Order: sequence, then C-alpha cells, then structure tokens
Amino acid sequence: MNELLPKLSTVPEGIHSPSDYLPYAKERLPPEIWRYLEEGSANNVSLQANPHAFDSIHLIPRPLSDVRSGHTKITLFGQTLAHPVILAPLAYQQLYHPHGESASAMAASAQEGQSCVSSLASQTLEDIISAAGQPLWFQLYWQENRERTLKLLQRTIAAGYNAIIFTVDAPVKQATIQLPTTIQPINLDLPAPFPALLPQQSQVFNGWMAQAPRWEDLAWLRDQTSLPLLVKGILHSEDAEKVINLGCDGLVVSNHGGRVLDGTPASLACLPPIVSAISGRGKVLFDSGIRNGRDIYKALALGADAVMVGRPYIWGLATAGALGVAHIIRLLRDELELTMALTGTASIQEITQEKIQISRNQNRN
Amino acid sequence: MNELLPKLSTVPEGIHSPSDYLPYAKERLPPEIWRYLEEGSANNVSLQANPHAFDSIHLIPRPLSDVRSGHTKITLFGQTLAHPVILAPLAYQQLYHPHGESASAMAASAQEGQSCVSSLASQTLEDIISAAGQPLWFQLYWQENRERTLKLLQRTIAAGYNAIIFTVDAPVKQATIQLPTTIQPINLDLPAPFPALLPQQSQVFNGWMAQAPRWEDLAWLRDQTSLPLLVKGILHSEDAEKVINLGCDGLVVSNHGGRVLDGTPASLACLPPIVSAISGRGKVLFDSGIRNGRDIYKALALGADAVMVGRPYIWGLATAGALGVAHIIRLLRDELELTMALTGTASIQEITQEKIQISRNQNRN
Amino acid sequence: MNELLPKLSTVPEGIHSPSDYLPYAKERLPPEIWRYLEEGSANNVSLQANPHAFDSIHLIPRPLSDVRSGHTKITLFGQTLAHPVILAPLAYQQLYHPHGESASAMAASAQEGQSCVSSLASQTLEDIISAAGQPLWFQLYWQENRERTLKLLQRTIAAGYNAIIFTVDAPVKQATIQLPTTIQPINLDLPAPFPALLPQQSQVFNGWMAQAPRWEDLAWLRDQTSLPLLVKGILHSEDAEKVINLGCDGLVVSNHGGRVLDGTPASLACLPPIVSAISGRGKVLFDSGIRNGRDIYKALALGADAVMVGRPYIWGLATAGALGVAHIIRLLRDELELTMALTGTASIQEITQEKIQISRNQNRN
Amino acid sequence: MNELLPKLSTVPEGIHSPSDYLPYAKERLPPEIWRYLEEGSANNVSLQANPHAFDSIHLIPRPLSDVRSGHTKITLFGQTLAHPVILAPLAYQQLYHPHGESASAMAASAQEGQSCVSSLASQTLEDIISAAGQPLWFQLYWQENRERTLKLLQRTIAAGYNAIIFTVDAPVKQATIQLPTTIQPINLDLPAPFPALLPQQSQVFNGWMAQAPRWEDLAWLRDQTSLPLLVKGILHSEDAEKVINLGCDGLVVSNHGGRVLDGTPASLACLPPIVSAISGRGKVLFDSGIRNGRDIYKALALGADAVMVGRPYIWGLATAGALGVAHIIRLLRDELELTMALTGTASIQEITQEKIQISRNQNRN
Ligand SMILES: Cc1cc2nc3c(=O)[nH]c(=O)nc-3n(C[C@H](O)[C@H](O)[C@H](O)COP(=O)(O)O)c2cc1C
Ligand SMILES: Cc1cc2nc3c(=O)[nH]c(=O)nc-3n(C[C@H](O)[C@H](O)[C@H](O)COP(=O)(O)O)c2cc1C
Ligand SMILES: Cc1cc2nc3c(=O)[nH]c(=O)nc-3n(C[C@H](O)[C@H](O)[C@H](O)COP(=O)(O)O)c2cc1C
Ligand SMILES: Cc1cc2nc3c(=O)[nH]c(=O)nc-3n(C[C@H](O)[C@H](O)[C@H](O)COP(=O)(O)O)c2cc1C
Repeated sequence: MNELLPKLSTVPEGIHSPSDYLPYAKERLPPEIWRYLEEGSANNVSLQANPHAFDSIHLIPRPLSDVRSGHTKITLFGQTLAHPVILAPLAYQQLYHPHGESASAMAASAQEGQSCVSSLASQTLEDIISAAGQPLWFQLYWQENRERTLKLLQRTIAAGYNAIIFTVDAPVKQATIQLPTTIQPINLDLPAPFPALLPQQSQVFNGWMAQAPRWEDLAWLRDQTSLPLLVKGILHSEDAEKVINLGCDGLVVSNHGGRVLDGTPASLACLPPIVSAISGRGKVLFDSGIRNGRDIYKALALGADAVMVGRPYIWGLATAGALGVAHIIRLLRDELELTMALTGTASIQEITQEKIQISRNQNRN
Repeated sequence: MNELLPKLSTVPEGIHSPSDYLPYAKERLPPEIWRYLEEGSANNVSLQANPHAFDSIHLIPRPLSDVRSGHTKITLFGQTLAHPVILAPLAYQQLYHPHGESASAMAASAQEGQSCVSSLASQTLEDIISAAGQPLWFQLYWQENRERTLKLLQRTIAAGYNAIIFTVDAPVKQATIQLPTTIQPINLDLPAPFPALLPQQSQVFNGWMAQAPRWEDLAWLRDQTSLPLLVKGILHSEDAEKVINLGCDGLVVSNHGGRVLDGTPASLACLPPIVSAISGRGKVLFDSGIRNGRDIYKALALGADAVMVGRPYIWGLATAGALGVAHIIRLLRDELELTMALTGTASIQEITQEKIQISRNQNRN
Repeated sequence: MNELLPKLSTVPEGIHSPSDYLPYAKERLPPEIWRYLEEGSANNVSLQANPHAFDSIHLIPRPLSDVRSGHTKITLFGQTLAHPVILAPLAYQQLYHPHGESASAMAASAQEGQSCVSSLASQTLEDIISAAGQPLWFQLYWQENRERTLKLLQRTIAAGYNAIIFTVDAPVKQATIQLPTTIQPINLDLPAPFPALLPQQSQVFNGWMAQAPRWEDLAWLRDQTSLPLLVKGILHSEDAEKVINLGCDGLVVSNHGGRVLDGTPASLACLPPIVSAISGRGKVLFDSGIRNGRDIYKALALGADAVMVGRPYIWGLATAGALGVAHIIRLLRDELELTMALTGTASIQEITQEKIQISRNQNRN
Repeated sequence: MNELLPKLSTVPEGIHSPSDYLPYAKERLPPEIWRYLEEGSANNVSLQANPHAFDSIHLIPRPLSDVRSGHTKITLFGQTLAHPVILAPLAYQQLYHPHGESASAMAASAQEGQSCVSSLASQTLEDIISAAGQPLWFQLYWQENRERTLKLLQRTIAAGYNAIIFTVDAPVKQATIQLPTTIQPINLDLPAPFPALLPQQSQVFNGWMAQAPRWEDLAWLRDQTSLPLLVKGILHSEDAEKVINLGCDGLVVSNHGGRVLDGTPASLACLPPIVSAISGRGKVLFDSGIRNGRDIYKALALGADAVMVGRPYIWGLATAGALGVAHIIRLLRDELELTMALTGTASIQEITQEKIQISRNQNRN
C-alpha cells in the first residue's frame, strides 16, 4: 500500500530498547514479509506465552553492592565472548536487507559476540564467514538423508564454522511465505523429488517424517565431527538427557519462537527442569521470547549458559543493516549490565536463581 | 442486510485450519441462523470456558522420535475408522445448506469416519443413510413417553443405523430460532398437545420434566435394542458409572456445546474424573469446544476414545456442502497427524496423559 | 440529552432474563439516577467482585433425575413463600417510578414472595403495606439515638410489618445524589442538627460514628421487639456469631451491593465461613451480585436460606412498575426452577454444596 | 497542542478522592512533563504491579464497633504527626507549579504531617524549610564521593532538617526529561566531569557504579550525623537487616514508584517479609502505588509504620499549588478515617494483619 521507507545508514534517534526498533522495521518491510517474521503457528498461543513467561519472574534490587569490577564475559567452547547474546539462526535474511546474513554476522563480530548461520541462509556460507572475519556457528537442518546431510556438514566445516547447532524441532517445512526468486536457500542442493505416496499412506507420517532425523541419526552425526555439537529445539528433560548421553556438547531450549507446534509451554517454563536434568554435563542455551536485557538476566538466572535472540536483531537488520544489528546487540548488553548493576551482580556466573523471585500468579499486562 | 454469498462448489483457497472457514460460513448464512448456530446459553460462560480449557493443556514436542509407521486408525464397536473424528448430531442441517444432513453424512463416509444423525434432522433418516452409503449413528431424543420413543427407535434400526446416542442433557426445549416452514423435524411425530397445568403447578417441574426421561427409562431403553447404546451429556462421574452399570456401551462427555445450562464447567474439565470412574468398562467420547487437531490430541490424552465435533463441520457445510464438510474433517485429521508426529506419537493408543502437561494457571489470550 | 421513554404498561417482548430489562430501564431514567442506582463506591472493586464471584462456582447437570415433584417453596419465620427471592430494601423508589415502593411490594405479594421496605422509603409505611395486602419486612436504619430509633420501630410494628432487618454496614451517609424535593425519606423525622465539632475533632470519628449504633444498641434493640430481627451487612464470621448470641433471628450476608466500603471481598466469598459459624442457629440470608436464577442456586448451595435481590428488580420497576417487578421475580424463579431441574434438585433443601463445584481459578469473561 | 489551563486558586468542586485531581493536573501540564511524572521504567510492569497489589488485599467491615475515640495520630522519631501520610521526595517540583517544593512542604505542615525534600529540589533547602515553618525531612542522594556528600549533608543539617532519607535504589541517573534552564537541582554542586573510560570499560560498571554508594559508605554516613537516618529503596529482607545492623533508624520499602528497575515485584509484595525481618528494631515506611486511604490502611495492616505518597500530591500541586496538596493530604486522611471507622479500628496501632484478608487470586479490574 504505502511505499516502503528506505534503509537507514545511521541508527535512529531516541532508541532505548530493542523494541523501539519495531516500528522502524515494520515500515521498511512489505507486509507479507513482516507477517512472516512476526507470526507464530496456528493460534499463536505459544508465541504469546513466550514473552509472558518472563513477567512471572521478578528481579530484586540489591542496592549498595560493590559491582565496580562487573562485566558480562563468558567462555563457550573455548571462545571468550564479551557477552552471552548469540544471534539465533534465522532463514533468508536478504528478505530484510540486501546485506542479509553477512550484515548480521559482521555486527555480532563487531560486538565481540557470536552468531549462528541458518541452513536456509540466502548468502553462501563462505561469503558470510568472510564478512564476519571470525569463525561462526552453523545451524544444521537434516537434509533428507545422511549422505546429503554429511555433504552439507563437510562444506560447513571446510568453510571454517566452529560449532554445529542441529535443529530438530521443525521436521515439517510449512512454507508460509512465497520467496522471491532472488532469495533462495543458496547453500542447499535442490530437494530430491518427493517419493510418491501409496493411496492409504499419510503425507505426514510416510512423507515428511520419513525424511526427518531420528535419534540414531543424531548418534551418527555426533561421529561425523569433533566440533561442538548442540541440539536445538529441546523442551523435554528426558530428551535433554539423551542428547547429552549421546555425546553432544549441549542444547538449545527453544520452541522455535512459537513457530512450530502451537500449544507448547512457554520456552522459559521448560528451562529449569532441563537445567537440573543436565546438571552441568553440557551447555544449556535458551531462546524464544527474549526482548530485552532483563529477559536475558532471567533466563541466565534460571540456568541458561547463554541466550539466543531471534526476531529483535532482524528489526535492527531491516532498519539499518549491520549497524542496526550491532546497535540491538549493544542495547541488550547495556540493559543486561544495568540489570546486573541494580541487582548487585558483578558477573554472569553470579546470576543465579537466588537473584530472582518466581511468582505463582503470572503478572499479565 | 447485505446479500448472502452463494455456496461454493470447490473448497476455498488458503485454508489451513477449520476456523479459517468461519468467515466463509458467516457470510453465507442469515444473521439469525448464524447466531443460533454459534450461541451458547444465557451469559455464554460455559460456551467460552469450553475452548479456553484446552489452553491449559500443553503439548511437549518430542523430536527425533520414529513415527514412520504412524496412523490415526481406531476401532469403535467393531467398526474401523480412519480417524477418531465423529460428526456430532446437530439439528436441522438444511438451515445451512440445501443438502443438509445427507451432505454431512456423505462427507464423513468419504473421509472414512463416522457421523451421528440428530433426532431433529431435517431430512428423512432413510435418505440420509442412503446418501452416506454406510451405516450411521443415530442421536435419540426422548419422545415424551416410551411408546413414542420406541417407535422412533424401531424406525431408526430398520433404516440401518448401527449405534444409538441417547442425549439426556437437554430435557427442556428452548427454541431460540423460528424455523422456516420448509425445515422441520421431519422424522418426528407432531408433539402431543401439552397437558394443561393446574394453577399451582410449575411449567418446569410439572410440564417439561414430566416428559423428560429418567434413569428407569434408560434401563428400559437398554432392553429395547442390542445396538451399541451411548448416553450423551454426562458430566458427573457418578452418572457415568450409573450409565455403565445399566449396561450401556459408553457415553459422551459433553455440555452440549455450552447451549443448555450456563455455568457448567468446561466439558474438558469433566473428562478426567469420568475416565477414571469408568476405567475402561465402556467407551468415553468427548465433545464441546474442539476446534482443531491439537484439541483432539488433548482430549484423547485426557482419556477420550474418540471425539465429536459440532459447529466446525457446519462451517464447512454452510460454505461448500459435502465438499466443505469433508475438507474440515481432513483438516482436523491432518492437524492431528502433525501433532502426533511432532510429539513422537505413532498411534491413537499412544496418546496418553504422559504426553501432555497440565498447567495450573489457565493460559488465556 | 435524549428524552426519556415513557413507562410501559405491559412487559416488553423477548425478555429471557432479568438483565434483558437493563436497556429498557436505562432509557427510562435520567442519567444521574441511573448512575446512582448502578454505582458502587470508590473504584468499584467490590461492585465488580460481586458478580464475578459467582463465575467460580460451577453447576453440574444431573440428567435423568426424577424432579417431577419439584418446587421452590420455603418457610421463613413461620411464613411460607413460593420461592426464596426477597426484594432487598432500596431507598427512594419513586426515583424510578411514580408508584415507588408500593409497586414493588405489590409485585412481591403477587408472586407469593416477600419484600423489605427501606427506612428511606419515599412513600409512607402504611401506604406501602396496604398496597401489598400482606405483612412486609422493614429495614431499619439507626436514627442517631435510641429514642428516635424506638419511635420509628414502634410505628413500623403498628403498621403491621412482621420482621425487622437492621442494616448496620452504612453508618456514614454519603449522599451521591441530589434528591428532587418531591422525593424524601418521608417516614423519618428531620435529622437533629449535627453537633458542632471541636477544632481537633474528626468528622468521621466524633461526628458520624458518634451517631452510629454499637453492639450494646443491638442488644437493646433486641429487647424492644419480639418480631424476627435480622442484622444486615455482616461479612465477618465473628460478627455473625455475636449477632446470634445476642438473640437475633438471623442476618444478611451483604456488602450492600458494593456501595459502602470499596475493597471488601465479594459478598459470596464471605458466605461459607458465616454459614459454618452459625451452623443453623439462625437464618442466613444473602445479597449482593445476584443477577439470575443460577446465582440464586449457587448462593443457596453455599448455605444461604434465602436471597435478597437489589438492582435487578428496580430495572423492572423503572420499565413497567409493579408489572415489571413481578416479571423480574417470575423470571428469577423460572431460572431457579430450570437450574434445579437440570441439576436434579427437587427442593430448596436439596440445594447443597455437593451440587456445585468450586473452581480455584475464577472464570472471568 | 491545546493551551494549558491556568492554575486554580481554590480547590475544584466535586472531588471525592485524590484521583479525581488527575484530569485537572493533566490539563495544566505540558504533555512531556505529565509523561515524565506518570511514567515507569521500560515496559511499566512494576509501575502497574504497584497499584494492582492492593487489590488482592481485602478489607472486612466490622460494624457496630465503638470507634468514637478514633484518631490517626502517630509518633515518629519523637515528633507527633496528625496522620501517617508523608510526602515522598520528588525532584524538581517547580516543573508542576511555580511555588514548587515550598508549596508542598507548607501544605504538609498545614495538615500537621511531614514532608521529605528531594536532593533534586528546584528551590533552596533554606527557602523550603522557611516556607514550611517546621523542621522537614531531607532525601539524600549520594554525591559521587564522601566529601561532596558530606558537604550536602552538613548544609542540610544546618538548614534545620531533622531526618535524613538516604535513597539508594537509583544509582544510575537516566534523564528522561529535558529540564528547562530555569529549573535545576539548585542545591547541588555541578557534577564532576565524568572520568574517561578505558576502551574495554563499561559505562555502567566502571562509570556510574563507580560513583554509587556502597555498604561501607552507608556505615560512614551513619557516623556523620545523629539525626534519624532511613534508607529508601529496600526490597530485600537481607538488605533491611543490614540497614538496621548498621545502626540506621529505619527504611523505606519502595520500588521508586516503578521508575528504576522494571520487573521488581510490587512494592507491597516486599513489605511483609521486611517487616518480619526487622521485627520492630527500626521504623518501616512504605511507598509506591498508594492512591487512596484504603491503600494506606492496607500498607499499615501489612506492617508499615507510616507511608509516603508520591505522584498523587503532585496532582494537587499542579492543579492548585499548596492548596491542592493540602486538599490531597486531607482527602487521604479522610479516607483513612472512614476505612478505620468501617472496619472498627480506633487507632493506627490497631491496624494489624488480622484486619485484612489476603486473597490468593489477585483481583484485577
Ligand atoms: C523468521 C524466522 C526464521 C527462522 N528460521 C530458522 C531457521 O532457519 N533455523 C532455525 O533453527 N531456527 C529458525 N528460527 C528460529 C530461531 O532460531 C529462534 O529459535 C527463534 O526466533 C527465537 O525466538 P524469538 O524470535 O522470540 O527470539 C526462525 C525464526 C524466525 C522468526
Ligand atoms: C446448532 C446446534 C444444534 C445442536 N443440535 C443437537 C441435537 O439435535 N442433538 C444433540 O444431541 N446435540 C445437539 N447439539 C450439540 C452437539 O451435538 C455437540 O454436543 C456440540 O455442538 C459440541 O460442541 P461444539 O459445537 O463446541 O463442538 C447441537 C449443537 C448445535 C451448535
Ligand atoms: C440504589 C440503592 C439503594 C439502596 N438503599 C438501601 C437502603 O436504604 N437500605 C439498605 O439496607 N440497603 C440498601 N441498599 C442495599 C440493598 O439492600 C442490597 O444490599 C444490594 O442492592 C444488593 O446488591 P445487588 O444490587 O447487587 O443485588 C441499596 C442499594 C441500592 C443499589
Ligand atoms: C517524578 C518523580 C520524581 C521523583 N524523584 C525522586 C527523588 O528525587 N528522590 C527520591 O528518593 N525519590 C524520587 N521519586 C520517588 C518517590 O519518592 C516515591 O518513591 C514514589 O513516587 C512513590 O510511588 P508513587 O508515585 O506511586 O506514590 C520520584 C518519583 C517521581 C514520580
């Protein structure tokens, strides 16, 4: 309807928090792309539950504490990061800005953090890593079978990616957007023609799920690489244990931003049981619903080692490319630092469950 | 006001879930018929409680499971159905489409499921079953006394119906719509003239309730047929036990879609105690509030053997006749299959209470 | 603004429940009178809590029960009433209809029920009782001191009132409406000129509360009459016990329709502890928030012996005088009968706590 | 946009409660000043939680009690106050009325109460106290270091202030308004130029927090004055104990009106554990969210010795200067008296936890 506003080459004025970017992004994207970015699945029950879950966690100010030595550094798989904010893998980033995944990765590097590139990236893995100027993480989707999956994995490793995030919660591809022809999953081979189903067979069970990875495939995958391997999309503590027992280095507690199975609990609600099931035997990352630095603090207090952020950084990308993404990361870190300062917390390790109060009645606005 | 849109002869584009049919149906029905279809009783407390109850049940994704042999088949009273979705008995279906009950029954057959024809059908029992091309279920309302009731039952059996659903929760007929003269309960004899009340007598107790069935009538009814006999409209576990003890084959947990007594609990809230009271001695069906395949999964997880769906299939009927109804059933089955796949559930029998999480605080949108 | 509609001389069409009268009444009353009738105190927290409290009580249908002998009769202080619905005392009823309190009392008689006339009636006690054609109840407000109070009581008794409801919860008169000169508390003497306060004295403590009744005054009052004496406005079970121990015949659990102290619990929430404290040693009436027959059933199930209804009957009065009030009472009784029939309850005595389910999470619309 | 209305020189008509002043104030202030006054931090979660917390506390009427000797007097640090309502320290009051802090202090004196002047007052400490005509309380902010802080403290003491409220919960100054040049923190020295940060240093930890007070500074401060010293902004009971153990005379339970760290619990929720931790070893004041006399009653019932009120008195100031503030205080006292009278409470000491009921489900409007 209205013409789209042009991308900015500086960050907008008067921004205090990532969500202040939301209107800037919205007026720079075609409505169907905006909808695709923001939507959840079905009735959006899980989408809405994700941020609400944070409202039932309260922060307690601890004034007069000495936090002069405070910092947000963490170490993950041998790498030191200036802060625990990792860019989540999001598909097709050229939908939002011509610089696409490269811009996001560059911003993460500039902010001394880390970013994870999707299997469905719209730029080549090699171009993205070279823009970033540092090793990145790669998000792996199962490619129908082991052979095709291995091929993708090997290319990734060759390109210099230094951790693999294996996403398992979205075995069924439900395309809700018509990609422009210029934007494609450029790193993937064309999908094999879908095997014809017998009359009584089910598209779901005999079609999609026949091409989905299974536990034995994860075991196989673990053997194909010595890189850190994390499984993304775990909500049940039994699955978390299995992941660790198969020799993986960790997992991402995530309901995929409320985009797959509607009616899952809020991702945050699944974090504590998984943390206690793992009890330190692997890294626990968290995503889905994080919108500001206080949310990050709460996820860390519930036991996450680091967090992934999804949609918010895309708001920055859509507004001002790499500059916008870098600004979003910095805003999140600033808010995290302020929350730490006001709660008397001088390091990420000190962000423990004792720092928060969990209220029974969720506080809804 | 506005002219009604014509019925469609193909299914509409871009439908992902039964509720996407809602606007199509609404603009094809006169407002008073739409209101009659959708309304609940009094303040709609129960009507609204029904769908909300599903929000407090959470689904837990179980990725990496092997569900390649997955299917939705069930066996009910000796008949194998491709899925557990049964069309609930709804009165006067020619209000929604000229093809009325026949269209619905035909669609259920086409989808290899089952449908239940109301005592208040607007087409003859014989025509409907012949359109369906398979035996159907019949929903029986008490016809003032045993003689009249027996007459209706015998005609039903003669026509080839193979299960009787005896609805007991609506003894008082509260007509909230003026039927067009062309649409009538064509299978029923004219009601006997209402016996005159004495001055101090009550319309409710001495009028309506004097013509309502009682437990002894159910015992009598049980003796009149060897067909499977289920009682519809049970919410109390003591009543459920009584039904089974009288030799019935099962019951339908239902608050009649929130249309009778306002202030009943959500139908779903009554399911678990009844399931445990019956403990397998009969079949437990469930209805009221089911709107998608995830809801079906939740009802089955709480112990239902199958579900009945009411208003949603009428949306399909009002939009595109038998085609629309068949599409609704298929959509429900597809959503159920997807939910099973994502939760690692390969058969209806595997849908148990361990698959779900019941949250204390109902999650309201 | 708009002209007020004239009173009706027949009941309106299409009424199913008392609340259907609401729009009819509203368009027949000047806005400031409508506001005065409907308002609560301060932030309306208690006003809104009253009806919401009923939503957390659920009714369980019990089909197939034998209720052919059902009826709603009760006996109170020797009088048999056709139903347990008593008209609550409401001040200045000529504000709503020229026939005022007489119309209400006449309607209660016609419906074989009972009504309670306020100390602040706008018609003489004698005229009202003669219109009613039967003894009525009188609601007594303390008249500054014993002498003045006794004078009013004696006139009441002489006029033939047969029960005294002593309202104690509104010691401070907060006039929120400017009465027209033609409408006055015609049965009361002019208030004594308010004693002048010393500079450091408080209007509340040294003014109003010095003229409010105290426990010793209740003991005194008990000695002045052998009529049934009930205390209205009790919410604490200790006070309920005191009332009974002083020899009173019962009490009314009421927060005055949310019109006095904002922030009290819903009146319904206070009923069960009071019922168990009294344990049958006196009658427990209930009011505040009753809007339909299901609400009456719930209050009785929680232990009330009868209920008082306030604003709803005024909607009838404002619309169609005595005819409207009688219709409201009949609607409430019909709804009560229907609720009893559907829950398998054949008498008021059978309406017990076993008939309901109390849900922890209040069900809010 | 619209022109601002002029200040009033009499109190407006028809005011029943402080919140009735809200529209009067709003139309007398520029929108950005109104926003600055009313806003909370970030998503306003804590701002909104503050008043809602009061809704879950219920008041129980206790009619027939003898409260003729009732009064609201309290004694604090040797001074007798006519009521427990203290004006909270609010910065820059000339933003709201040319008479600024002097008007507020004068009003508090006229109402025989107390008021606390902010470090960020827009008038000189000396002028304010002389307008008040009685000793006042001073709210101290840490002035970067001990030397500067001591200088301010000594001037305060010299000016005749008789209690020090040391606010510790807002170490980071987040200016959300551009002060007009005529309105400045006139009692403070210009801030020292901010020390330059090293490249890897953090604005939060190495900048702001390096200039924030620490526990050892509180110990030092305690030694600098024998005046009553209270710490404002305590929400954790361990901190409350520390404050008392360091010899302070009390504290203010406060989340700064929801203006600092978003996501703290409602201030009221933190009061009971602090009261029991202190168990009488110091005075516990409360603020954040009080809007009427019933709220005051509830805070006192949960154990506060007195309350501070923030925004509401500014509504009076912005409307009608000292007259408006005095009216607000009187309204609060009247409402408190009425609440005491209706709950049978004759003195502040009698306002105990037995007088209230705490409901599990917060009652939200
Ligand atoms: C538009 C969009 C595309 C996504 N694409 C992928 C993807 O390709 N691979 C993947 O593992 N997750 C994908 N996700 C999920 C994110 O990695 C992440 O789990 C989610 O966005 C976190 O929730 P949040 O957006 O509330 O922060 C996508 C999410 C969005 C919103
Ligand atoms: C318009 C309408 C008519 C109905 N007629 C009947 C009927 O004739 N017999 C019966 O047993 N139930 C009847 N029902 C109840 C349904 O069988 C079923 O219990 C209810 O629709 C389930 O709730 P749902 O609509 O939320 O799925 C009717 C329901 C509706 C909405
Ligand atoms: C306009 C109005 C006037 C009232 N006047 C009196 C009165 O004079 N005496 C009294 O005891 N109660 C009075 N009440 C309270 C009622 O007797 C009764 O407790 C209340 O209306 C019950 O709540 P409901 O209106 O929600 O049914 C009055 C209530 C209203 C709404
Ligand atoms: C505009 C504004 C300015 C404030 N300035 C100060 C201040 O200078 N020092 C301080 O200790 N508290 C300050 N506060 C906090 C108040 O003292 C008090 O804690 C808070 O207003 C209480 O919440 P309430 O407004 O809901 O009553 C300020 C609050 C507001 C709204």
